[in-house]
Amino acid sequence: MRAAVLTGLEQVVLEDRPEPEAGPGWVVVQVESASLCGTDVHQYDGRIDTPFPRVPGHDFSGRVDSVGEGVDESWVGRAVAVKPSLPCGQCPECLTDKPFDCKKKKLIGLWSDGCMTERIAVPVVNLIPRPDGVEAWQASLLEPLAVGLNTVDRLRIVLGESVVVLGQGPIGLALTRLCALSGAGRLIVTDAREAPFEVSRAYGASDCIDVTKTDATQAILDLTDGAGADIVIETSGFPSSSAMVLDAVRKEGKVAHIGWANDLPPLPVIPIMAKTLTVFGVGGNGGRGQYERSLELVRSGRIDLDPVVTHRFSLDDVAEAFAVASSKSDGAIKVVVNP
Amino acid sequence: MRAAVLTGLEQVVLEDRPEPEAGPGWVVVQVESASLCGTDVHQYDGRIDTPFPRVPGHDFSGRVDSVGEGVDESWVGRAVAVKPSLPCGQCPECLTDKPFDCKKKKLIGLWSDGCMTERIAVPVVNLIPRPDGVEAWQASLLEPLAVGLNTVDRLRIVLGESVVVLGQGPIGLALTRLCALSGAGRLIVTDAREAPFEVSRAYGASDCIDVTKTDATQAILDLTDGAGADIVIETSGFPSSSAMVLDAVRKEGKVAHIGWANDLPPLPVIPIMAKTLTVFGVGGNGGRGQYERSLELVRSGRIDLDPVVTHRFSLDDVAEAFAVASSKSDGAIKVVVNP
Amino acid sequence: MRAAVLTGLEQVVLEDRPEPEAGPGWVVVQVESASLCGTDVHQYDGRIDTPFPRVPGHDFSGRVDSVGEGVDESWVGRAVAVKPSLPCGQCPECLTDKPFDCKKKKLIGLWSDGCMTERIAVPVVNLIPRPDGVEAWQASLLEPLAVGLNTVDRLRIVLGESVVVLGQGPIGLALTRLCALSGAGRLIVTDAREAPFEVSRAYGASDCIDVTKTDATQAILDLTDGAGADIVIETSGFPSSSAMVLDAVRKEGKVAHIGWANDLPPLPVIPIMAKTLTVFGVGGNGGRGQYERSLELVRSGRIDLDPVVTHRFSLDDVAEAFAVASSKSDGAIKVVVNP
Amino acid sequence: MRAAVLTGLEQVVLEDRPEPEAGPGWVVVQVESASLCGTDVHQYDGRIDTPFPRVPGHDFSGRVDSVGEGVDESWVGRAVAVKPSLPCGQCPECLTDKPFDCKKKKLIGLWSDGCMTERIAVPVVNLIPRPDGVEAWQASLLEPLAVGLNTVDRLRIVLGESVVVLGQGPIGLALTRLCALSGAGRLIVTDAREAPFEVSRAYGASDCIDVTKTDATQAILDLTDGAGADIVIETSGFPSSSAMVLDAVRKEGKVAHIGWANDLPPLPVIPIMAKTLTVFGVGGNGGRGQYERSLELVRSGRIDLDPVVTHRFSLDDVAEAFAVASSKSDGAIKVVVNP
Repeated sequence: MRAAVLTGLEQVVLEDRPEPEAGPGWVVVQVESASLCGTDVHQYDGRIDTPFPRVPGHDFSGRVDSVGEGVDESWVGRAVAVKPSLPCGQCPECLTDKPFDCKKKKLIGLWSDGCMTERIAVPVVNLIPRPDGVEAWQASLLEPLAVGLNTVDRLRIVLGESVVVLGQGPIGLALTRLCALSGAGRLIVTDAREAPFEVSRAYGASDCIDVTKTDATQAILDLTDGAGADIVIETSGFPSSSAMVLDAVRKEGKVAHIGWANDLPPLPVIPIMAKTLTVFGVGGNGGRGQYERSLELVRSGRIDLDPVVTHRFSLDDVAEAFAVASSKSDGAIKVVVNP
Repeated sequence: MRAAVLTGLEQVVLEDRPEPEAGPGWVVVQVESASLCGTDVHQYDGRIDTPFPRVPGHDFSGRVDSVGEGVDESWVGRAVAVKPSLPCGQCPECLTDKPFDCKKKKLIGLWSDGCMTERIAVPVVNLIPRPDGVEAWQASLLEPLAVGLNTVDRLRIVLGESVVVLGQGPIGLALTRLCALSGAGRLIVTDAREAPFEVSRAYGASDCIDVTKTDATQAILDLTDGAGADIVIETSGFPSSSAMVLDAVRKEGKVAHIGWANDLPPLPVIPIMAKTLTVFGVGGNGGRGQYERSLELVRSGRIDLDPVVTHRFSLDDVAEAFAVASSKSDGAIKVVVNP
Repeated sequence: MRAAVLTGLEQVVLEDRPEPEAGPGWVVVQVESASLCGTDVHQYDGRIDTPFPRVPGHDFSGRVDSVGEGVDESWVGRAVAVKPSLPCGQCPECLTDKPFDCKKKKLIGLWSDGCMTERIAVPVVNLIPRPDGVEAWQASLLEPLAVGLNTVDRLRIVLGESVVVLGQGPIGLALTRLCALSGAGRLIVTDAREAPFEVSRAYGASDCIDVTKTDATQAILDLTDGAGADIVIETSGFPSSSAMVLDAVRKEGKVAHIGWANDLPPLPVIPIMAKTLTVFGVGGNGGRGQYERSLELVRSGRIDLDPVVTHRFSLDDVAEAFAVASSKSDGAIKVVVNP
Repeated sequence: MRAAVLTGLEQVVLEDRPEPEAGPGWVVVQVESASLCGTDVHQYDGRIDTPFPRVPGHDFSGRVDSVGEGVDESWVGRAVAVKPSLPCGQCPECLTDKPFDCKKKKLIGLWSDGCMTERIAVPVVNLIPRPDGVEAWQASLLEPLAVGLNTVDRLRIVLGESVVVLGQGPIGLALTRLCALSGAGRLIVTDAREAPFEVSRAYGASDCIDVTKTDATQAILDLTDGAGADIVIETSGFPSSSAMVLDAVRKEGKVAHIGWANDLPPLPVIPIMAKTLTVFGVGGNGGRGQYERSLELVRSGRIDLDPVVTHRFSLDDVAEAFAVASSKSDGAIKVVVNP
C-alpha cells in the first residue's frame, strides 16, 4: 500500500509499504481522512526531532478493516475517529485498564509510523465510533478541539468574563470557538496575519488584533478599561506572544499556556504573585473524554469545521500538502489529506 | 404625582401621591420604565400576602432627579438601573458597609411602596449607572437575568452538558438564554403553553416540550439516551413540574430549584442519595454583582430582550397591564409600564 | 468449608459449603477479617429485603489463595483489601474497562453470597494490595471511610467551617474524623446514646449532643451564634434527625444526606431556596480511588480504627456477633468476625 | 510619645513623636503588641526600599484609645487586632464601600508611619474586635496566618494530598500548620537551618529536610514514590528553592508561590505545560475575611502561636529586636515588641 514517508528535513515521498496486521486487542483502520497539525509541520521543518524515515500523521479517521484476537468482530466496517496516542501497555495504569492515564503514551506519527497512509493498526481502545452525520474529514480534525476542551474545562469561564486568545492557528481558533460557547464576554484574539480573522469572527471573536500593526498589550488594556482581561490564553508558541500574557491579564486573573516552542521566554514570578494570578499549563488533550465530547460538538453543529479547512490534497500530492501547511501560504489554516 | 396603588385583590387604581424626598444617602429616581414580574402578579392575585394599600413594582430604571445629604451631586441627571431590595441599614452587615449581604433586605413594592409611579426614593447604593446603548425599558428587565446568573454561577455548566429548563416564563427564558451562553449542549425546555417557545428557540433551546401534550419526563429520557439530563432547573413553581426533577436528571447530575410556590411537593431523600445528586436552592439574585453583569450582557447584545416584551402600557393603563400579566392572555411574557 | 448463613429473619447458622473456584479474571481470597455494617444488620433484622439463604458480609480483607485464568500468578499469597461491589461485567462501562463506573454493581453478601466464610471468589479488579503495617482487621473496616471520603470530597470544607455530623454510628464516626482532618472548625456531633462520644471526642469533635436529652437544633444554633452550621451531614437514617438538617444549617450552607432508611421524611423545597442551600446526596463510596485513599489514611495513622472495634468474634460465634451488632448492646460500635 | 524610627539602613532609634489624632472615620489605637515580619526586616536591611525616616511595623494589636468623627463611641476601650493595609479612600472601590478591594492599599509602616510606637491612628474599617481568650501578643501575629489562609483557600487540598512547604520562616510555618489542618497527607518541609523543625513537627510536618545537607528535590521524589508531591508551596524567597518547584511537583500537580524576592529565577514554561501544572501566585492576605478567620483559629486553639515567638523586647530595646530578627540569630523565628 502507499504511504507518505518523511525521509529527512522537508523531504516527503510516497513509498510502497507492507500491509499492517492487527495483533491481539488491535484493529486495522482504513484511513479515510487525515489532517496536518503543527506537530507534523515541525517534524517536517525540524523544530521537532524525528527519527527518519517516518510515516507522519496522527489526527485521522476511517473505517475498521479487520480486527485482532480478542476484539469484537462487530467493529469491522464501522466508521471511527481515532485517538492519536498509543498507551505503552506495560505500566501500572495500562495493566489496570486505565490506558489513557498512561504516562508513557506515545504520539502516532512521531514515535511510531502514522496515518499518512492507506491503512494503519491501532489498539481498539483508541477507537471512537463515528456517529451518523459526521463525515470522515470532520472526524480527522478533532485534536485541536480536544486540546481546547482540556483547556476550558480547567479555566471554568464565568459567564461574561473577558477572554484573550493569543494566536489563531488551529488550536487558537478552536479555543476562540470553545470560549465563545463557554460564556466568554468580550473575546479578543490576536495573530500575525489577518487571514484567520474571518473565521475568528464567525467563531465569536469580538475584537481581532493584528500584532504586526498594533501594540497588542495596549490594545487589550484599552478594550478592558485598563484592567486587563479576566483570562489570557497563549496558543501561538511565539516568544513575543508568550511574553505579554502577564501584562495582558487583570489582577486575580487566569492565564493558560498551550503554545509549545523551545524558545519561549520563562515567566517572571513577581508579577504572578503581585497580581495574584493562576497559571494553567496545558500539555495535551487530557485523555478523559475530551475526544468524545469534541465529536459531539461537531455532530450537533455547535462547531462548524468547514471554514478552517483551507486545503485538501490526495495522498499522491502529500508533498505539496506539507509544503502548504509549512509555509502557511495561500491563507492556509488546516490542510486535509484524503488517502 | 401619579402612582399605581394596589388597594385589594385584583384592584389597582391610579392615585395622587406626595413627591418623595431623598434622605441622607438616598436619591430620588424619575421612573422611566418598570416591568411586571411574578411577584407583582402574585401580590395582585393574592398568592403573596401584601399589606394594602401598596404601590407595587420593584424592577425599574430611570434617571436621578435629586440627591440627599452625603450623596455626590454628580448623580443628578444620570441614567440608572436600580437594584430592587432595600438593605435594612441597621444590621452588622449594613453597618460595616456590606449592604447587599444584609439578611433583612426588603423587596421594594412589597415591604415598602414601589416603582409603579413617577418618582421614588432609594438608597444610592442601589443604583447602577446605565451605560450608553442600553435603553430604559431594557434596564427595567434585569431581575430575571440576575436571578438566572446567580443560578448558572453555582451550577458551573461544563461545556456540552445537557440542560433542562422547566418553565418558560421570564425567569425560565432568562435561564434558557444564560445556559445557552454558558455552554449547554442539548438544551431542553418545557412549558404548559406553546407561546414562549419561539423565544426559547431564539434563545438557544434545542427541544421544546409542551407538558400538556407530552409526558415530559419520558421525553427528556428519550432525548438523553435514557440517562436523564446532566442538569435540571425548575423555574415554573408548578407542583407537577417540581415533582419530576429527580426523575429527569441523570445519576450524579445537578438540580436547581428556583420556582417558588407554597404548594410545591417536598423532595424525597432516597433518590437524591441513590442518584448521588447535588441540589441547589436559589433564592434570589445573589446581590454580588449579578445586576451589573446582567446589564453588560444586555449592553453587549448577548441577550436580546426585545422578544420577551410582549406588552407595553402607560402608567394610566396600569390596571390593564396587571390584568394582562396575571391572565397571561394574548401570549404575554413580559409587561412593561412606562410612566 | 464453614460459612455463616442467614436462613431467615434474625436466624444465622453455620453451614458447610463447597470451596469456591476462581473463574477467568477472578481470584479466591482467604478471609482473615470481616466486619459487620448496617447493611448486614438490616438484612438480619429485615429492614433490607434479602433472598434467604444468603451468606452475608461485604467489608473484609484476607490473602489471595488462588487465581483464575488470565490473572497474574504473583497475586497468590498477597495480603489484600477487597472492594465490596461486583461489577456486572456486561454493560458498556464494564466492557470498556471501567468496571467501577458500572451502574449495575451488586453488593457482595446481598446480591450474591458474601464474606462471612473461610474463602470467597471475587474479580481481581476488586483487590487492593494491603501494605505493610496495615493489619487484616483494619483492612476489613474501610467501607465507612470510603463513603466518608466520597462525602468530604464533594463538600470541599473551607478551613474553619463549622460542621455538624448527625449520628455517630460507624459512618458518622468516620465523617467526624474525616471532617476534623479536612479543616472543620467547630465540629458538633449528635447521637441518641452517649456510648460513641468518647470516640467522637478522640476523633476531633468539639461538642457532643445527646438528642435524647437536648434539643439538638437549638443547641446547634446556640453553638453557632444563632446562624446555624456551615455544613450539616446526616448519617443516622433516623427521621427525626433528617428532619432537622434544614433548620440546623446556616443561610448559603451545605447539607449532605447519607443515612439511608425507607421512612425518611421528604425535604421541603421552600427552605432550600430561601436559605440558598446546596444539598448533596451520597449514595456510596464513589468507586474512584476512595478505597485506596482510606487504606492510606489508616496506614499513615491519620485514622486510628482501634477505638471503633468494640467486639470481636470467631466465625463459630457469628450468631452472637449479629445479635450484638443488631441490638447495639454493650456499647457496640463495630463488630469484627475473624474466620 | 515614643516611636521607633528607621533613619537609614540598619539604623533604628527611639524618638519622641507627637500624639496621633483620629480624623473622620478613624481611631487611635494604643499599641499593646507588635511583631516583626520579613517586610520590616527587609526595610531594615535595604532589600525593600523605604523612605527614611520611617516608623516601621504593621502587624499589631492593642486597644482603642479615641475615635474620630462618625465612629461609634462604643469602640473606645475595646481590644482589637488591626488589618495592616490602608485603603486609599479615593478609588471607586473605596468610594463604594469595598475598601478591602482597593487596588491602591498601602502597607502601614512602609508607605506611612507604622506601629512600632505607643499609639497610631488607623481607619475604623481596619479594626477587628479581639475576643476574650486571645491575648494582645497573639493578635499581633495574624498576618502570616492570613497570607497562609489566602493560599490554602485557593489550593483546595483534597484529603490525603501530599504537600511540600519550602521554607520554614513565619509564613512557611503558618502554611505547615494550615496544610496539616486542611487535610494534607504526607507533609514535607524544608529549610536551610534546623532551628524551626521542632515547631514544624509540632505543627504536623511528617518530614523535615535541611537543604544544606540533603538534595531536597531528590528527597521529595523519594518520599513520593518518584512521582513528586501533589502540591508544592514556595515561601522562602530563595532562588534555589524557587528553582526546584517544577521538579518537586507531580504531573497535574499544583504549585503556589509566596516567597517574595527580587532575585527569584523565572519559571520555564515547557515543564508547566508538559506536566499540566497549575501555578498559583499569592500576593498577600486576600482581604476577604482571612484576618477574622485567622483570629478564630488562634482563639479556638487550632493554631498554637506560642512556639513561634522566640524573642520578646520592650520598645526601648527595639534596635536589638531588629538586629535579632535580621540575623535570625539565636534560633529566632518571630520577634515581638511590647510598647
